[in-house]
Amino acid sequence: MSPIDPVRLTADLIRCPSVTPEEGGALVLLERLLGNAGFDCARVDRGGVANLFARWGDKDHARTFGFNGHTDVVPVGDAAAWTHPPFGAEEIDGILYGRGATDMKSGVAAFAAAAVDFVIATPPEGAVILAITGDEEGDAVDGTVALLDYMNQEGEAMAVCLVGEPTCPNTMGEMIKIGRRGSMSAWFTVTGVQGHSAYPHRARNPLPAMARLMDRLASRELDQGTDHFDASTLAVVTIDTGNPATNVIPAQCRGTVNIRFNDLHSGATLSAWLNEEAARAAEEFGVKIDIKIKISGEAFLTEPGALSDLVATAVQAETGVTPELSTSGGTSDARFIKAHCPVVEFGLVGKTMHQVDECVPIEQIHQLKAIYSRILRDYFA
Amino acid sequence: MSPIDPVRLTADLIRCPSVTPEEGGALVLLERLLGNAGFDCARVDRGGVANLFARWGDKDHARTFGFNGHTDVVPVGDAAAWTHPPFGAEEIDGILYGRGATDMKSGVAAFAAAAVDFVIATPPEGAVILAITGDEEGDAVDGTVALLDYMNQEGEAMAVCLVGEPTCPNTMGEMIKIGRRGSMSAWFTVTGVQGHSAYPHRARNPLPAMARLMDRLASRELDQGTDHFDASTLAVVTIDTGNPATNVIPAQCRGTVNIRFNDLHSGATLSAWLNEEAARAAEEFGVKIDIKIKISGEAFLTEPGALSDLVATAVQAETGVTPELSTSGGTSDARFIKAHCPVVEFGLVGKTMHQVDECVPIEQIHQLKAIYSRILRDYFA
Repeated sequence: MSPIDPVRLTADLIRCPSVTPEEGGALVLLERLLGNAGFDCARVDRGGVANLFARWGDKDHARTFGFNGHTDVVPVGDAAAWTHPPFGAEEIDGILYGRGATDMKSGVAAFAAAAVDFVIATPPEGAVILAITGDEEGDAVDGTVALLDYMNQEGEAMAVCLVGEPTCPNTMGEMIKIGRRGSMSAWFTVTGVQGHSAYPHRARNPLPAMARLMDRLASRELDQGTDHFDASTLAVVTIDTGNPATNVIPAQCRGTVNIRFNDLHSGATLSAWLNEEAARAAEEFGVKIDIKIKISGEAFLTEPGALSDLVATAVQAETGVTPELSTSGGTSDARFIKAHCPVVEFGLVGKTMHQVDECVPIEQIHQLKAIYSRILRDYFA
Repeated sequence: MSPIDPVRLTADLIRCPSVTPEEGGALVLLERLLGNAGFDCARVDRGGVANLFARWGDKDHARTFGFNGHTDVVPVGDAAAWTHPPFGAEEIDGILYGRGATDMKSGVAAFAAAAVDFVIATPPEGAVILAITGDEEGDAVDGTVALLDYMNQEGEAMAVCLVGEPTCPNTMGEMIKIGRRGSMSAWFTVTGVQGHSAYPHRARNPLPAMARLMDRLASRELDQGTDHFDASTLAVVTIDTGNPATNVIPAQCRGTVNIRFNDLHSGATLSAWLNEEAARAAEEFGVKIDIKIKISGEAFLTEPGALSDLVATAVQAETGVTPELSTSGGTSDARFIKAHCPVVEFGLVGKTMHQVDECVPIEQIHQLKAIYSRILRDYFA
């Protein structure tokens, strides 16, 4: 079997219209390619989402390197605004266009190509696992989580895992992600008693309670950051009432906050604080405050060490750039994998992800495959 | 000319569909009736609004008693919800039904009937003015204001004025209004810089500034009331953002407050305070805060004295009830008349005003005419 061209594979994957939760042919294509290369493949579909587990080598090896990524993409958005067909994979002047070009069909293609070439050219003492999901951009409850559940159940294990998401802000190689802040949102509903503005003592206005609560939440310094994390932040994202009448005191208003937190906090400790502040304001103003909380992900960190060194060395060797170890950015599926094994993220420049005319320089796909190949060689050396 | 039946006149006026700003035949009817009784009448129409000025007696009398009222009514609302035709003036079991039955075609009918009967039966040394507007329920910029402008221009003057609006909360005779609190609203727009919730330092969130500003405004005790006024109040009536995305910090939000204030304040002093607090919050949070203020009416008071004594004595004599001198409630056209001459308000029970099946007990209309008649007799005695 000849070496796999990661650019052609990226283009083939772009042509699969795999908008979450559609499989779109992407995982079928990868399963055939990996199966032909000697990988044991299993579709791990759950809740209407397609996922692919693929392992080369035996499942009880202590040296098992894992890659994680996703083939699903966000919607096209305004199709008329695209100057290249979003599922056309047009290549123009060294740039490949299409939805998923950076996020992250190129990443999946690069690690699939690297893994296949590696196990065929130099079969290692150990195993390589590819855990590829069809739902990272959606709710992500039946995606990588389903793959990890499957692995636990089947006795499959990765010793380390590299997530191939785009991680570089501007220049290829400049950033490895070794953790992520946690994220949570809280929706507050303050309920009082409606009345006439001329007789406020007969009403119970929910708005002053909301104002004070939001001022307090926004004013609190959560921490000052850590060696690896920025300071945690809380953003009040909306307060809404919808009362057009100046002579009416409304019965209810709603407010929402979003918190990005480092590993000095957890969803639970922050939830307790939010509930405490809501109860305090409710008592001060004699109103009812309901609160709904959703924790999208806990903060996690893979301490700098063997895994990040392995990736950084390969990046440096292939690009000449010394990558920063960062915990910036939103959530990724690494938050799930953290409970399974050490995990870091490295991929190409993510500038155009989720945008119209999403695209990737072909050179970067080759570089990324070269980096992933070197990582595999070094890991199994 | 025989005495005028105020109940029949009320019914005739109800049958005129004079929803603001429609004249509906109401002022035409009154002009004919008053003209026949020897009143000099002038239509003072302005800005699409019809108004009627009527004077009996010479215009240069020091003893000139004025009545003020309006013939326009608020809309019917849900017509299907009425069990009596809103412009039908049905009389059932001593109750007269229809839009304007209490607010305030009965009041206009009562003072017109009282005035006509009085000047015919016992022509006084002095003059009686009826200043009746067709726009009190609307913007009120071309209603009583137009009548006062006309009077100033023509050298017409009232020595005192009684506004015939419903003033009694529950029982006929229980309340005379000698002033009103002022009313104003302020619309705040806080503008920051939009951004991603994960990177709040790159955005400038307008919401914490709005929350603190509103908390401060709502927390301030404006005063503790006076001998004649309740404490001034500020109600935050709405805060709105309209941002559905928890990962977005919005660029802008809006908030509105409504202030009801006594004569310890003015629209100007309160505006200065609002501007000061907005500027303070803007500086603290590095955001822009625009403020639009509308002063609906200044606080005013006709100190208890000759005029309120005159009205209270008549009320007591006709009803046996000792009226309270109050400054409660919303605005009325008395706020305009205050600059012209001492003004108080007295009318019947306002319970059903602006409601479906608005109605008035016929007995109250007779009582009201008797009270107004006694006031005229006592004033010119």
